[in-house]
Amino acid sequence: MITSNAKERTDLAGLTQQHQALLDRAVQALHERTFYSQYPEHPSPAIYGEGADKAGLEKYNQLVGKKFEELQQGYPQTWVGQEESPYEQESLSITYPFYEVDTLIQQGQESFDVWRKLSPLERASVLIESLERVKERFFEIAYATMHTTGQAFMMSFQASGPHAADRALEAVAAGYEEQTRFPETQVWEKPMGKFNIKLNKSWRAVPKGLGLVVGCSTFPTWNTVPGMYASLVTGNPVIVKPHPKAILPIAIVIAELQKVLTENGLPPAICQLAVDPDDKLITKDLAEHPAIKLIDYTGGSAFGNYLESLQGKTVFTEKAGVNSVILDSVEDLDKVAQNLAFSLTLYSGQMCTAPQNFFIPSSGIKVGEEIVPYEQVVQKLAEAITELVNNPKAGPHVLGSIQNPATQQRVSQLQNMKGRSVLDTCEIVNPAFANARICTPVLYEVEASDKDVYSQELFGPISLIIKTRDTQESIEVAKQMALEHGAISCGAYTTDAALKEQIMDQMGLAGTPVSFNLTGGIYLNQNAAFSDFHVTGGNPAGNASFTNPEFVIKRFTWVGFREPAID
Amino acid sequence: MITSNAKERTDLAGLTQQHQALLDRAVQALHERTFYSQYPEHPSPAIYGEGADKAGLEKYNQLVGKKFEELQQGYPQTWVGQEESPYEQESLSITYPFYEVDTLIQQGQESFDVWRKLSPLERASVLIESLERVKERFFEIAYATMHTTGQAFMMSFQASGPHAADRALEAVAAGYEEQTRFPETQVWEKPMGKFNIKLNKSWRAVPKGLGLVVGCSTFPTWNTVPGMYASLVTGNPVIVKPHPKAILPIAIVIAELQKVLTENGLPPAICQLAVDPDDKLITKDLAEHPAIKLIDYTGGSAFGNYLESLQGKTVFTEKAGVNSVILDSVEDLDKVAQNLAFSLTLYSGQMCTAPQNFFIPSSGIKVGEEIVPYEQVVQKLAEAITELVNNPKAGPHVLGSIQNPATQQRVSQLQNMKGRSVLDTCEIVNPAFANARICTPVLYEVEASDKDVYSQELFGPISLIIKTRDTQESIEVAKQMALEHGAISCGAYTTDAALKEQIMDQMGLAGTPVSFNLTGGIYLNQNAAFSDFHVTGGNPAGNASFTNPEFVIKRFTWVGFREPAID
Repeated sequence: MITSNAKERTDLAGLTQQHQALLDRAVQALHERTFYSQYPEHPSPAIYGEGADKAGLEKYNQLVGKKFEELQQGYPQTWVGQEESPYEQESLSITYPFYEVDTLIQQGQESFDVWRKLSPLERASVLIESLERVKERFFEIAYATMHTTGQAFMMSFQASGPHAADRALEAVAAGYEEQTRFPETQVWEKPMGKFNIKLNKSWRAVPKGLGLVVGCSTFPTWNTVPGMYASLVTGNPVIVKPHPKAILPIAIVIAELQKVLTENGLPPAICQLAVDPDDKLITKDLAEHPAIKLIDYTGGSAFGNYLESLQGKTVFTEKAGVNSVILDSVEDLDKVAQNLAFSLTLYSGQMCTAPQNFFIPSSGIKVGEEIVPYEQVVQKLAEAITELVNNPKAGPHVLGSIQNPATQQRVSQLQNMKGRSVLDTCEIVNPAFANARICTPVLYEVEASDKDVYSQELFGPISLIIKTRDTQESIEVAKQMALEHGAISCGAYTTDAALKEQIMDQMGLAGTPVSFNLTGGIYLNQNAAFSDFHVTGGNPAGNASFTNPEFVIKRFTWVGFREPAID
Repeated sequence: MITSNAKERTDLAGLTQQHQALLDRAVQALHERTFYSQYPEHPSPAIYGEGADKAGLEKYNQLVGKKFEELQQGYPQTWVGQEESPYEQESLSITYPFYEVDTLIQQGQESFDVWRKLSPLERASVLIESLERVKERFFEIAYATMHTTGQAFMMSFQASGPHAADRALEAVAAGYEEQTRFPETQVWEKPMGKFNIKLNKSWRAVPKGLGLVVGCSTFPTWNTVPGMYASLVTGNPVIVKPHPKAILPIAIVIAELQKVLTENGLPPAICQLAVDPDDKLITKDLAEHPAIKLIDYTGGSAFGNYLESLQGKTVFTEKAGVNSVILDSVEDLDKVAQNLAFSLTLYSGQMCTAPQNFFIPSSGIKVGEEIVPYEQVVQKLAEAITELVNNPKAGPHVLGSIQNPATQQRVSQLQNMKGRSVLDTCEIVNPAFANARICTPVLYEVEASDKDVYSQELFGPISLIIKTRDTQESIEVAKQMALEHGAISCGAYTTDAALKEQIMDQMGLAGTPVSFNLTGGIYLNQNAAFSDFHVTGGNPAGNASFTNPEFVIKRFTWVGFREPAID
């Protein structure tokens, strides 16, 4: 099936001309870091066309129960698939082509010599073209995301569609910029007194080799495309190994990219989909293969640590973390409680940025000029959650459903822990999906001394209230948690400027971004492409930062060449 | 002894104003990559002042046999030192203050909160000021380098003085640029239809923590200052642990930096010298200390691999490599032989960039339009070496002396290897130092199939001629050597443009820079700050690249903060 090579490939001048302006704009946005988005997040007909939603749902429904036949990476050994919808709790019955690890590696390696010889601009243009094509399938991808991850429709659309595409574009822009930051050629002329030594020099950004991108079950495109596009733009073919329960959204993205590749005479194996057979996981076989030089991974810490320990690989990870909220002083406690209730309820706490540990001083917090006692603060938070989840117009749409049955079990086993339950989970029904796996958030109260309870990620809708001596202890423990167990986000509420600086300084040392005093329509678990760096690399939660320069430059090597210049 | 803190420190506005222009010029040079040097390499009186050489020698002589009392990092536990001159083969009897590991770590940590809170421009200015002071001591450092490393005077002056200072400036410029590439603050305003969400955002480049810089015995400042200044400019205090046989050159550099620090009210412990006690090495104790977050290392591969395996550290290494020369076709064989003879004789092959493996096709090489047989090419090279080392005006000054007696032993044990000796070592005398440890280069011939012989670094004046089937085999094996055993430089001689492109492509994949067709006064083992990247990170020879962006950005973490903007 790999039929093309560099000599036969289509002239890419048209594509580069078409996308150069967008690429330059995206590079500029990287450095401005104000709001910038190429792919509008609102699924409105005005933007995406009348009937786009309905058409997307129909296309999704046509994919269910069939073979996914859009890939062009060669004849498969067999067909496999084991996705099931958290909303229906039944199998999607979609199967994907399966290839042996050696086949994937060999095809990837054959494509390397073609892909690495394109210019950074050519690669970036091919990749941007693929994003423009993916845009046409945002609704289809949204429904595919709903029925694999359990996200509600709005998050499925935004996270897997426009937000993911913006993050991919960000990685393309960053990779393009880094590869073009030094001159391709230069004359070096050194005065030696009576004569000059003159050399013609040139430099190449040499890609490291095959990349492996390992996806997670909750954000199958958002967490996959940054590494995938970062490896690709820097000249490395990739093999994408999605989570076996969340394949369809990224399969659609890869299919669109393969179409752009073949249309331009490039081998589709530059980006391959690798699925596990139904009886066996293949990620280790892929990761340990000596041809794999780059690994991007999102998922649990144990497997992430194993990947990081592999010799001879450059590994980017996003693993578990323990995210904190420090409550010290606020203007309006109701607004704060509503904001935090939304943050921890959103997609049932299944976001890597969701808050888990809420640090509240035993003496209470300052609200305006008053002190509100600890118990009352806890109660406010519990009430705000209860109100949100029981609001039929909001609750089901914020909660979504639970991707993995193990998350539900974790909630039900909480009662065996030290501490006291403040808010139990309750049964609510999604009006559209009677059989949806749903589990409302629980609040659990522990002492600051119960570190064994709260110094681990309790993935899902589980929040812990930690009673501290004072805000100084809150900061100290939140910092320690981040340094020892990782953190991806932090919320802090204080009206004291000195304390704010102290929190920035101390959480900064723990490599944790902090959102201060959020109320209203912005939440600490949201972050924006081209502005917020996602995962800093400064603590055990991972080193894959979307997208700082480190995320792209470790994917290639600068190599220089020189020769005497003949005058 | 740590008496100052950020509040009491001198205003640094004078220094930043003084050095801003130089810093900007250096950043510009990083991206132009044409010839640029701040510190002239020629030790001429016109540049460095009448009598500067003589005064430097006198100052060096005054240091010999005494305690080195210029450091300001506190009262030492004791005094230690075991340097000896390869030219005299006797002890320098200089002793240095010794501090326990815990003392060094504690003092370093105390200084961290001061140093990290300066701006990148303030740190860069302090560091540039230290280089300007070091410049005043280049001759003293040159003699200190001669009598620790065995380098000849000219190399001692250039490598340890101006070239090292240029490399340090390069690291300062790169670190400054990377820390200022994103805005410190920005307003992020997202249109939401009926209203905008507006956040004030800020970002900080947060340093990782204490750095350890481990020096080598042959280039005590050149290989130490890039990592030292890269960690420092990014806000990380450093502990510099020189090789026990080559302390004085870097001790002078650190003393000058500590003077600048204390003059500006900053703790001298921001940069500390750590020497081994005479009966024990302390590098492992330092490296394994949890407070050490960054490690820079130059030296053997076994210890380098151990350092790279330490968890929770960011490690930059320059280890052993096997450098190749590929001979295919030339215009003037005599000129080529003279150039290569110089390259392998320079400092008796004790440079990390010195060539070791010379690949010559068994059918000979093309010289102009003629084919010169293999044997004749080998003979030419042997003759050029013999002529160079026996030229009393050149030989001793090119050879220098042998730093480590083990290097001399390695040469004498060569006869036990497979293969055939082409050129034996001979005894020559240095006219100025009758007792100098000298060993002229040996040439040894092996078959391409004798990989066990040539697939290792034979440090010192040992060159291997490897007889290959043809140039294709030469390229293939040179690439394999680099990929499997590391390489820092490569020389290639070909008049064929397609072959040249093939060598660039293939050695590029092996992360090895290539110098083509060098003759005359420029050699493959030389490389220039602000133009040649030294060590690419693309093969097992190490990942410390002087200075590409990766060498500095891994020393800090981008952390973002945000808060609703109040209109």
